[in-house]
Amino acid sequence: MYERIYNFNPGPAALPLPVLERIQSEMLNFRGTGMSILEISHRSAEFDKVLNDAIERIRRLLSLDDSFHVLFLQGGASLQFAMVPMNLSEPGKPVDYINTGTWSTKAIAEARKQKKDVRVIASSEDKEFSYIPKDINFDGQASYIHITSNNTIRGTQWHTFPDTKGVPLVADMSSDIFSRRFDPGPFGLIYAGAQKNAGPAGVTVVIIRKDMLERVPDDLPTMLKYTTFAEKNSLHNTPPCFAIYVVGLVMEWLEDEIGGIDKMEEINRKKAEMLYSCIDESDFYRGTAAREDRSMMNVTFRLPTEELEKKFIQEALSKGFGGLKGHRSVGGCRASIYNAVSLEAVEKLVEFMNDFAKANRP
Amino acid sequence: MYERIYNFNPGPAALPLPVLERIQSEMLNFRGTGMSILEISHRSAEFDKVLNDAIERIRRLLSLDDSFHVLFLQGGASLQFAMVPMNLSEPGKPVDYINTGTWSTKAIAEARKQKKDVRVIASSEDKEFSYIPKDINFDGQASYIHITSNNTIRGTQWHTFPDTKGVPLVADMSSDIFSRRFDPGPFGLIYAGAQKNAGPAGVTVVIIRKDMLERVPDDLPTMLKYTTFAEKNSLHNTPPCFAIYVVGLVMEWLEDEIGGIDKMEEINRKKAEMLYSCIDESDFYRGTAAREDRSMMNVTFRLPTEELEKKFIQEALSKGFGGLKGHRSVGGCRASIYNAVSLEAVEKLVEFMNDFAKANRP
Repeated sequence: MYERIYNFNPGPAALPLPVLERIQSEMLNFRGTGMSILEISHRSAEFDKVLNDAIERIRRLLSLDDSFHVLFLQGGASLQFAMVPMNLSEPGKPVDYINTGTWSTKAIAEARKQKKDVRVIASSEDKEFSYIPKDINFDGQASYIHITSNNTIRGTQWHTFPDTKGVPLVADMSSDIFSRRFDPGPFGLIYAGAQKNAGPAGVTVVIIRKDMLERVPDDLPTMLKYTTFAEKNSLHNTPPCFAIYVVGLVMEWLEDEIGGIDKMEEINRKKAEMLYSCIDESDFYRGTAAREDRSMMNVTFRLPTEELEKKFIQEALSKGFGGLKGHRSVGGCRASIYNAVSLEAVEKLVEFMNDFAKANRP
Repeated sequence: MYERIYNFNPGPAALPLPVLERIQSEMLNFRGTGMSILEISHRSAEFDKVLNDAIERIRRLLSLDDSFHVLFLQGGASLQFAMVPMNLSEPGKPVDYINTGTWSTKAIAEARKQKKDVRVIASSEDKEFSYIPKDINFDGQASYIHITSNNTIRGTQWHTFPDTKGVPLVADMSSDIFSRRFDPGPFGLIYAGAQKNAGPAGVTVVIIRKDMLERVPDDLPTMLKYTTFAEKNSLHNTPPCFAIYVVGLVMEWLEDEIGGIDKMEEINRKKAEMLYSCIDESDFYRGTAAREDRSMMNVTFRLPTEELEKKFIQEALSKGFGGLKGHRSVGGCRASIYNAVSLEAVEKLVEFMNDFAKANRP
């Protein structure tokens, strides 16, 4: 039997070992029901408890007051790219987007497909999306301002959110939700595919401010309206029960074992600093993102040659470090260090990186 | 530790015990990867194998030739209610629906919402959906004919599919796919939420005939086009990996342990006959569906009084038989006897039902 590896996958990604062990131990008999979590009814008291516990933990972790709904949808962030303009654009008003990479670009394309008046009010495309745009001019006219809070492929992250003159922020937080403290106040909607910091693939966490629901057009298909999910506590139809259950377990781990978001952020900050220090102190590795905009979640870097990168990724895997290949669209290397990647895993990776640099310096 | 119960849930429903045990045993280290199936990349060779194995098994089990795609979507049958008319209605042609209950009614409502020219060409609403309409007049003019192959709430099922004069059939087979042999030829599209006969909640199996893809309008949102999933083998974005993995395991069980669809149908037929005999031979239980249209999957019945029904459900649960309550919209009792419900479970239920009738005859 193979040991578990250090998993630096970009998503689906590492989950906390205690969560996996819990899933394993309850698989045949979920909490005295005599059934697996995969077999219980979504209308049962047991599942209601699972669902509401996950919601309440998310509320506490993110300090969400009663002005927000916490919903569970399907279809990933990719479906949200379409649902956001469909539900939240106001008649006669533009929708504003800030383009910081592949995922923003896709979100923009979906809004355009719906013939919305899309304005790309800032972009870092001029420098291969290696930074986060600053000093953006907000005119207060848009239905919403859409941003991607963390850019997994380019390794950049918004460290502070812009002041949008009262226009609601809409954020794709798929890759950094639950990793750090932020003020939810300015956000009209936050969405996140769970498969990075929150759980397995197959569920999307949607946090929506209640006043945004007034914008939802009546004539949308039932399953594409945020109101459908808000009115039925995500139980209009059968939800992805197992994925919601795992999200609940991850939230429980984050709250009860880690000690909450602030503690998690402290650990995440340490992990990122260790890796970026290793890169900056070497003349072998080179970070690809602008220093002030570097992601705490996805550390992107290059080696002197593509050949060395290939060797690095292979040798790392043989020593038990998985998932270090950069996204196929940009190449290079990437270590994704989401919440469930331990400090120890990063320490070991830094050791390996130092050794590899020493042995392979040209 | 509580034992596992006999699970007659309508969905999410019973899964084969060997499948659950397999999930449990591989949870911490999926087939030598050193990661859980919940942590591996959807772009990895390992997941590709999982995905393609599930597809190939579905092809073999249903005798699907190369004219069909097998796709995995999210959002349940409920999202298909909207996607079907969006993708498959042809300009200037009506879309025809046959109304056999709650789920058909919802499918019709979604097509109407999209302002399609919806014709309900047959309905069993006049007798509380207790039968399947016969001698339907098909005029050959429609884009497609939509049916619900099995009606979970009313306990009716199409035992033979109608000859639609060449117009493609579109079927919601959520609750009886993989339970019996049928000729896929007349079907343009088949969809099924997995959580009854195919796996856990959180994935929808979509089988689409390739020529139907030519109908898909270009300007639909990317995630709502069948072409998106067909062109990328369901990997346009992160799919619900775990749910697909479980579907694959259920297909493996069905193919390798049960021995395929014909064998499964034989067992299902035996199970249904046992239960319906118990009902018909008693003067205590009363079946609610027309005899010739009775479902092999959902056996719906009433007791002499609602009080006795309540007692029946409670006493059954205390003896280890779960999920026997009828749908909240119709009341009464229902035993869902999907593929994973064993002959033994049904035998035990019949014993219990006979005992209960004897003890409670008014």
